[in-house]
Order: sequence, then structure tokens, then C-alpha cells
Amino acid sequence: MTSHPMETQGQWKMTVWEEENFQGKRCEFHLECPNIMERGFQRIRSIKVENGPWVGFEYPEFQGQQFILEKGDYPRWEAWSGNSGYRTEHLLSFRSVKSANHSDSKITIYEADNFQGRKFEICDDYPSLQAMGWCSKEVSSMKVNSGAWVAYQYPGYRGYQYVLERDRHTGEYRNYNEFSTQAPTNQIQSIRRVQH
Amino acid sequence: MTSHPMETQGQWKMTVWEEENFQGKRCEFHLECPNIMERGFQRIRSIKVENGPWVGFEYPEFQGQQFILEKGDYPRWEAWSGNSGYRTEHLLSFRSVKSANHSDSKITIYEADNFQGRKFEICDDYPSLQAMGWCSKEVSSMKVNSGAWVAYQYPGYRGYQYVLERDRHTGEYRNYNEFSTQAPTNQIQSIRRVQH
Repeated sequence: MTSHPMETQGQWKMTVWEEENFQGKRCEFHLECPNIMERGFQRIRSIKVENGPWVGFEYPEFQGQQFILEKGDYPRWEAWSGNSGYRTEHLLSFRSVKSANHSDSKITIYEADNFQGRKFEICDDYPSLQAMGWCSKEVSSMKVNSGAWVAYQYPGYRGYQYVLERDRHTGEYRNYNEFSTQAPTNQIQSIRRVQH
Repeated sequence: MTSHPMETQGQWKMTVWEEENFQGKRCEFHLECPNIMERGFQRIRSIKVENGPWVGFEYPEFQGQQFILEKGDYPRWEAWSGNSGYRTEHLLSFRSVKSANHSDSKITIYEADNFQGRKFEICDDYPSLQAMGWCSKEVSSMKVNSGAWVAYQYPGYRGYQYVLERDRHTGEYRNYNEFSTQAPTNQIQSIRRVQH
């Protein structure tokens, strides 16, 4: 989808396996993978991220549900999917996240579409936006000023995930259809920085 | 389990329902509930936390898996359970968390049991302990200096949850059997502050 400068090669590294617990066919990546099936995989069932962050997608070409992948071991699908109600074991494409900056991140959330209505500037992680003082279960638009963020449907970083980056859409997400290619709702109850 | 001074009554409030989406039999709580079945419930399927935080437990008398519950709406079990591999829909007891302090929290993690080996002092949320520089997927003991924390099995706040509080065990968790009554492992890959 996006061309990446060659000098970033080698800074990101993740390995995927076709079976749980790092078994079966494997393949290593440094930039992105628009369709794991083109590498002869039926599916991905376990992942090790050696250098992150990455974002995984349910469907090829970076479509569908999103899954943030920071450094560490993911031996089974439930280690990355926060959404066990809509149980998908698909993770068919993924790419590196360039703009993550854990120590300098800022996002502004808005009550209405197109950056209208009440707003709130956020520089820290909030497992409950309502506990922080946001009087709604919804966020309608968001502007990433710096860093990369993940917004979640439920409190405590659960449910649908939306990865929001400074260097995509120039950081502007004008309505919930721009949060992902398949956001079912504008319900957002927790938000946090992505760790580099 | 613990007696709470009367003056804290009214600062915590959560409502539980027997069915999903806040339907069916309901009951409101302000302190704790050692066994929801004694209130005539078969199960809990949805929760609203109006003032938190709380911690839910899989079994009566605060036993088994733990689930952190911060302010917000939890319409289905997967909104609080991060552990869909071991699919339990049980949440049979719960109590308020007193020591949460989002702006002043500190925990020290240790490589070995009884606060031995390499250590790291943490004052911020880390979705990946390995990305922070911790060279292992395990944490063997922890000391809460202030606030309340949740440690998780997988990166990105997924898998088994362990709620760690300054005012329980005097904040000291000497080995993984003290993390919860049923910790299956000392694998911990992410950690974060609990929000008040």
C-alpha cells in the first residue's frame, strides 16, 4: 500500500507460523506482507515479534479487523485478538508501524464527526475514558498529533482495536469509517500509546 | 475477606445483570460480593461500572482467574475476559480496588523469586516488557510501591490477568503462586497501572 524507504529495512522483524506454539511452516518479515496466502500459508496461528510494532489485519491488503503486535510472543490467536465474540482466526496481512513513540505521543479525541463538539487532548494511556472524564461511550473523530495509538471498543483494552498513526491520513480520522475498513461502531472506551 | 471502613461506602458502584446487554435480573453493589449465587444469580453476563475500579474473580470467595473492571460498559463476557483460550464465562465474586492511583504508581519487577535477580522499577504502562528492555517472557516476583497494577500473560494486555495492589500482601508478591490463587505460569509480557 505504501512504499517504505530502504533504510528502514532491518529495524522491524517478525516471524509467523502456520500452527500454534511456533510449529509448522514459518516465514520471517521485515517490512510488510499484503497477503500471507501468496507465501503458501493457509493461515497464521502463532507469531513472534522480535522488533515492532506491527499491525495485523484480518483480510489481505490491510483490510478488516486490526490487531496491534508489539514485541513479544503470541503462541495462539487469542494472544492478539481482543474480540472473541466475533471469533475470527484470520490474520492474513500485516505491516510495520513507523510512527510509534511511547515517550512523546499526543492524540485529540472529538465528540462529533470532522473534529467538532467537545474535545480532549490525550498524552497518556487511559484504560477507561469515562473514568478520565469523557462523558460518553463514543468517540466520533480523532486527530493524531504525534506517535501511534490504539483505541478499543471496551474498557481495559478489549474488543475491536483501531490503530491510529501520525503518518497515515496525516493523522486525521474524520469519522468512524476511517478508523478501519470495517469499524462496526464509534464505540471507544479505552485508548493507549503504541510502544516502539 | 477484608473489612472496609464505612466511609468508603458510596465511592464504588457497579451493577451486574444475569443476561447479555444489561438484560434480566440485576443487582447493584458498593463494596464487594463474595458469591453472586447467594443473591439468586446463576451467572453474570453483563456489567456496568459506574465508579471503579473493581476486580472480578472466576470463583466465589475471590478465587481463580482475575478480571480488572474499570469504569465503563461490559455488555458481554469477552469485554472483561482477555483469555478466550481457556473460555470461562464465570465471574462469581468481586470486590473494589482501593489503592489505584493512575498518576502516582510504582512497581518493581524481579527476575527471580523473593525479590532476587535482575530488577526493574516501573512507573508507566508497558504493553511490551520486552520492548522496554526486559530480556525475558517471565517475571518471578513483584513489589508494589504505590498504586494498583495489572500484569498480563501476553503483550498488549491479553491473556491471564493479575491485579497487584499496594494494600494487599503489603504489596509483596514473592512468587507466581501469590499473583493469584490459580496462576498457571510466571509468564508476564505486559503491565499497566489501574485507573481510578
